[in-house]
Amino acid sequence: MSAQNTKTVKAGEKVRVVLVGGSGYAGFEVIRILLRHPQAQLVGVFGPESALGPMESFYPLLSKQVPLDQELFTPEKVAAVRADLAMLCVPHKVAMSYVPQLRKLGIRVIDWSADYRIADKAVYEQWYCPHTDPAGLAEAVYGLPEYYAARIAKAGLIANPGCYPTCSALALAPVLQAGLIKPEGIVVNAVSGISGAGRKPMLKFHYPERNENYEPYGVGDHRHMPEIEQTLSDIAGRPVTLLFQPHLSPMDRGMLCSIYAEPTRPVTAEELNDVLEAAYADKPFVRVRRDVLPATKYVATTNYCDVTARVAKGKVVLFSALDNLIKGASGQAVQNMNLMFGLDETAGLF
Amino acid sequence: MSAQNTKTVKAGEKVRVVLVGGSGYAGFEVIRILLRHPQAQLVGVFGPESALGPMESFYPLLSKQVPLDQELFTPEKVAAVRADLAMLCVPHKVAMSYVPQLRKLGIRVIDWSADYRIADKAVYEQWYCPHTDPAGLAEAVYGLPEYYAARIAKAGLIANPGCYPTCSALALAPVLQAGLIKPEGIVVNAVSGISGAGRKPMLKFHYPERNENYEPYGVGDHRHMPEIEQTLSDIAGRPVTLLFQPHLSPMDRGMLCSIYAEPTRPVTAEELNDVLEAAYADKPFVRVRRDVLPATKYVATTNYCDVTARVAKGKVVLFSALDNLIKGASGQAVQNMNLMFGLDETAGLF
Amino acid sequence: MSAQNTKTVKAGEKVRVVLVGGSGYAGFEVIRILLRHPQAQLVGVFGPESALGPMESFYPLLSKQVPLDQELFTPEKVAAVRADLAMLCVPHKVAMSYVPQLRKLGIRVIDWSADYRIADKAVYEQWYCPHTDPAGLAEAVYGLPEYYAARIAKAGLIANPGCYPTCSALALAPVLQAGLIKPEGIVVNAVSGISGAGRKPMLKFHYPERNENYEPYGVGDHRHMPEIEQTLSDIAGRPVTLLFQPHLSPMDRGMLCSIYAEPTRPVTAEELNDVLEAAYADKPFVRVRRDVLPATKYVATTNYCDVTARVAKGKVVLFSALDNLIKGASGQAVQNMNLMFGLDETAGLF
Amino acid sequence: MSAQNTKTVKAGEKVRVVLVGGSGYAGFEVIRILLRHPQAQLVGVFGPESALGPMESFYPLLSKQVPLDQELFTPEKVAAVRADLAMLCVPHKVAMSYVPQLRKLGIRVIDWSADYRIADKAVYEQWYCPHTDPAGLAEAVYGLPEYYAARIAKAGLIANPGCYPTCSALALAPVLQAGLIKPEGIVVNAVSGISGAGRKPMLKFHYPERNENYEPYGVGDHRHMPEIEQTLSDIAGRPVTLLFQPHLSPMDRGMLCSIYAEPTRPVTAEELNDVLEAAYADKPFVRVRRDVLPATKYVATTNYCDVTARVAKGKVVLFSALDNLIKGASGQAVQNMNLMFGLDETAGLF
Repeated sequence: MSAQNTKTVKAGEKVRVVLVGGSGYAGFEVIRILLRHPQAQLVGVFGPESALGPMESFYPLLSKQVPLDQELFTPEKVAAVRADLAMLCVPHKVAMSYVPQLRKLGIRVIDWSADYRIADKAVYEQWYCPHTDPAGLAEAVYGLPEYYAARIAKAGLIANPGCYPTCSALALAPVLQAGLIKPEGIVVNAVSGISGAGRKPMLKFHYPERNENYEPYGVGDHRHMPEIEQTLSDIAGRPVTLLFQPHLSPMDRGMLCSIYAEPTRPVTAEELNDVLEAAYADKPFVRVRRDVLPATKYVATTNYCDVTARVAKGKVVLFSALDNLIKGASGQAVQNMNLMFGLDETAGLF
Repeated sequence: MSAQNTKTVKAGEKVRVVLVGGSGYAGFEVIRILLRHPQAQLVGVFGPESALGPMESFYPLLSKQVPLDQELFTPEKVAAVRADLAMLCVPHKVAMSYVPQLRKLGIRVIDWSADYRIADKAVYEQWYCPHTDPAGLAEAVYGLPEYYAARIAKAGLIANPGCYPTCSALALAPVLQAGLIKPEGIVVNAVSGISGAGRKPMLKFHYPERNENYEPYGVGDHRHMPEIEQTLSDIAGRPVTLLFQPHLSPMDRGMLCSIYAEPTRPVTAEELNDVLEAAYADKPFVRVRRDVLPATKYVATTNYCDVTARVAKGKVVLFSALDNLIKGASGQAVQNMNLMFGLDETAGLF
Repeated sequence: MSAQNTKTVKAGEKVRVVLVGGSGYAGFEVIRILLRHPQAQLVGVFGPESALGPMESFYPLLSKQVPLDQELFTPEKVAAVRADLAMLCVPHKVAMSYVPQLRKLGIRVIDWSADYRIADKAVYEQWYCPHTDPAGLAEAVYGLPEYYAARIAKAGLIANPGCYPTCSALALAPVLQAGLIKPEGIVVNAVSGISGAGRKPMLKFHYPERNENYEPYGVGDHRHMPEIEQTLSDIAGRPVTLLFQPHLSPMDRGMLCSIYAEPTRPVTAEELNDVLEAAYADKPFVRVRRDVLPATKYVATTNYCDVTARVAKGKVVLFSALDNLIKGASGQAVQNMNLMFGLDETAGLF
Repeated sequence: MSAQNTKTVKAGEKVRVVLVGGSGYAGFEVIRILLRHPQAQLVGVFGPESALGPMESFYPLLSKQVPLDQELFTPEKVAAVRADLAMLCVPHKVAMSYVPQLRKLGIRVIDWSADYRIADKAVYEQWYCPHTDPAGLAEAVYGLPEYYAARIAKAGLIANPGCYPTCSALALAPVLQAGLIKPEGIVVNAVSGISGAGRKPMLKFHYPERNENYEPYGVGDHRHMPEIEQTLSDIAGRPVTLLFQPHLSPMDRGMLCSIYAEPTRPVTAEELNDVLEAAYADKPFVRVRRDVLPATKYVATTNYCDVTARVAKGKVVLFSALDNLIKGASGQAVQNMNLMFGLDETAGLF
């Protein structure tokens, strides 16, 4: 850990943030959050040759609010605006080509891509592609603040978790840690709004194809599956395996996991929810629901993840919901930024 | 079985149909199907005191097409229009108060409610309310045509299956019959469009509450669970138990079940789909999907149920999709009617 | 008019139909209608090099129903399957390259594109591109059955009207004919579902861009404007000019026009609706609404156009609604086919 | 104007706000805005007997954020929490029964209802009901900050404008002031998302009735019509009359007006947009669009109103869009609050 990783921002000061890859939905959301943030300032937006120009040309909603242009990315330009932090909303593979250049210049990085999420290079390469930045992989901290806050605070490089992994892990981790469910045979039936699929036009995301359409995809081969297993195995302290099955629901945003697991002994919903509450008692962005079941609309546009547990037909049933663009992406990144720079964990996030 | 139950309709003739309870979504759909049916004629619509008047006042879409009024229901009026068949789209409990009166008059009945679906009176009463028509219960045939066509053909009273039970059973039955999955520990993660909740305005179905909202409900206590278990136990020839978990997705119509089960031995997706195909080779309304996963839009406004099987992480994963108002309700009722009156099973259903 | 244009189809016989351009939404809808049509049969589907293969690969919903492949289009192949009629769902410009070839072979044509809608070559060329088939232009009949049924019956080539022109004209024509509104200064504020924009993926039709989004487009330059003016001028017998302003509403299908005009003398809603009713008394697919205002859902998946008139603040206000894919495209084409082949105008359309 | 009306809040201090009527969508939105507001604090929520209890029971999204209960409203309780400001989200008629009681206690009021919007008692009574608080009517200031900021700053009672009037007026006012369009014969074709209809369940707002449905309503008799005319007449300095025609589009939120007017002389879009820009050069929440047409999604969840002008077929066409719950209701109320208490007009609103 280099010296600059411990820089914190004092009252009245602001973190100088650069966004790399500002033309997608995650970029948009982080811009909106930063606009409201009392101690952060967006000082530049950079992107590829193919997507340059005023930010309002990408998002007309930002007109009059964000006078910045997306300029061609070079690490030197990021340094020139004296950025404390680069937020990378670029595809995997691109991310690991940018990160070493930024780190070399002493700039801390939060990366939205998958490039630094899988700690085991071999596993990464099995699911993605050859990894070209083992040093970054060694340095990276998995940015799930509810479990890794201390390491996040001192990190130079954060692998911002996937939306599905965040949603799944926050529900499962406490009950696995408590040994109340078996660490294998778990099923995560997950549902996402369409913004989770990104902003690139494709027939399957064309409005009349998706509206009034609920559909499964990626059976047994979704890349978030090994990420979820890695995170839970790490938190539980023993191997956790599960079947992750994603679906698309016709809505802009929101994510909900319905999780089915075998109890290790007879257990009640009350006991399970007690465990969840104990785990998140001092975590500002996880809410344990006892009466109302989680629903995507109850967390929409917030950084909350709602979780709850039930018992039915001998199985433990967990539900978790979050906004895939906020707690599942850009809100979580800002939460990580807050921890990295010694700010209130919730700054800018209500 | 009384004599009238074997009446069939010859080429050029029409089944005279009466609809009881025409103001909800299932009533609407059956009217639209009957309008296109070459051998059936809607000769009357009857309902409660609180919902009388021209059919177009309930559904402006039917204006100019259906000149009938919904009149106050009495069994005598149904007999007076010489109905061969009464289709009952009324709530449970109301259904079992109407059915004996209609059967006494020799009118065959297809009942959309749950009153005659659960063969075991004690189980019915545990999940619903006291049952007042044990004779009807004894006579009723469960109207899942893919499995009970012979009995349906001669039935005087059909219990039209629930939408979730139809969707679940069509995927699970063949693989249970083939002994390829364990008959316990099955999870049915089901999703429905909002029309499945009926037409009565309630805050939870108010547009701004449901739009952009995906939500679970009825954990462990949905009344379709015992119906699914009964059907599958009967078809499989041994007790089947499962956890049925429903959800609402923001769309008008459509239903999809993601089903997770344990194989009894190592099995491949190909083998499972072969079993599905063999089971439905001569069934016109079940399609086995090998390449494209089922999706609600691929069955919307049709009487098809699409099913497929996959294997992932050691589990058998089945998907099934149907239109909750068609194959899950009114299309299936017409399919039953076709069988009851000796018509082509598909008449009026393409 | 050549001899073959008067061929009619007798009871028991079927019109042999070929579809050219089967991979878009209009193609899909006409296939579904033809499946239900008692006197028409789809005998072939043809398309461009870039979109060949089984119809179910374009529309999984058609699996098991439509065993045809989309084959490479040549006029000879259309002739080889002894087609009575070619339905062309191809872009403008492509249409006028195919039509002369088909007509030369004696095949009657219904063309969904704009190529034969604008009778005046100069006007067509001002709004579209150079016109290469003046003979076709001379032969073509504008396929608005409520006004041109006699000519349609004998036509060899039908220009199937645009969705907006159909919706606008059916409301305006009777009151213009009756001289009750001024033929200039009319405003047509029109709204369409997204399927109206076709099936080609583009950012502006990407689900998260269109959902929760209502938006105007094409101010003063939409190509349907001259088509509406031509039709109304022809029906009214004097020049009609109007401002047509389209918008997109977040829904799959449906179209509604809110039309504002100046009365030529004090007039009441009742008088205007009487005029509408007189005009459409014997037209099966136009419904005049006196009590319930037209809405897209009241015509969805039907071939109806609902119209009504009101008077407010000294203006005549007309509303008209239809399903853009049915009465606005493929249903209207089948209505035209029915007239061309001496069938009941409503065959296959309920 | 009483002394208390000039109270301003200094840096570090907070306006103490009470919300009356917290169970609807407008209440929800103002709570969310106040949560982010650096200089305002929600110190109580009050409502009717029929809707008391924890705020999270009305809006599960607010769980953990808003620990307040909605308590039974009495003016004394509002005074007891030392409220500087009462925000009234109650129905018209109820509002004018509460306002005098609050004003008597020296509490400033922003009222969301229509009770104080129509300055002319006779006009109010023609469209609504007998008015029982003429003193309040005399005192009330119409809270459209872009035109009445000076009076708002000193007001004791603000009539918070309707959503449609705000959207219509912001586009029309400058061009009427500039004399570029005729003050009569204007047509406002307006479209709203469903949240605009409130939170009370009714069949017409039941999800399956509204989804995929675009529909006009209130022809010539919508109560916002006289409010729009009053506002524009006041700003333009001469009588303005128009036809206001509302519609519902299937989306949660958003509003867009397409406005058609006659120019008084030949005019260009550029000239019109120059006039709009001059009018709003120093107004933080109105954006003049030259290239991109306004759309509801470009203003969703913001306090912006986007406006633009075009010329087509001899007419002036204006478009304006806003979020009906923010700039059309609760955001505008907070903007008014900011002006009333000497805060930055934009505080809490980005």
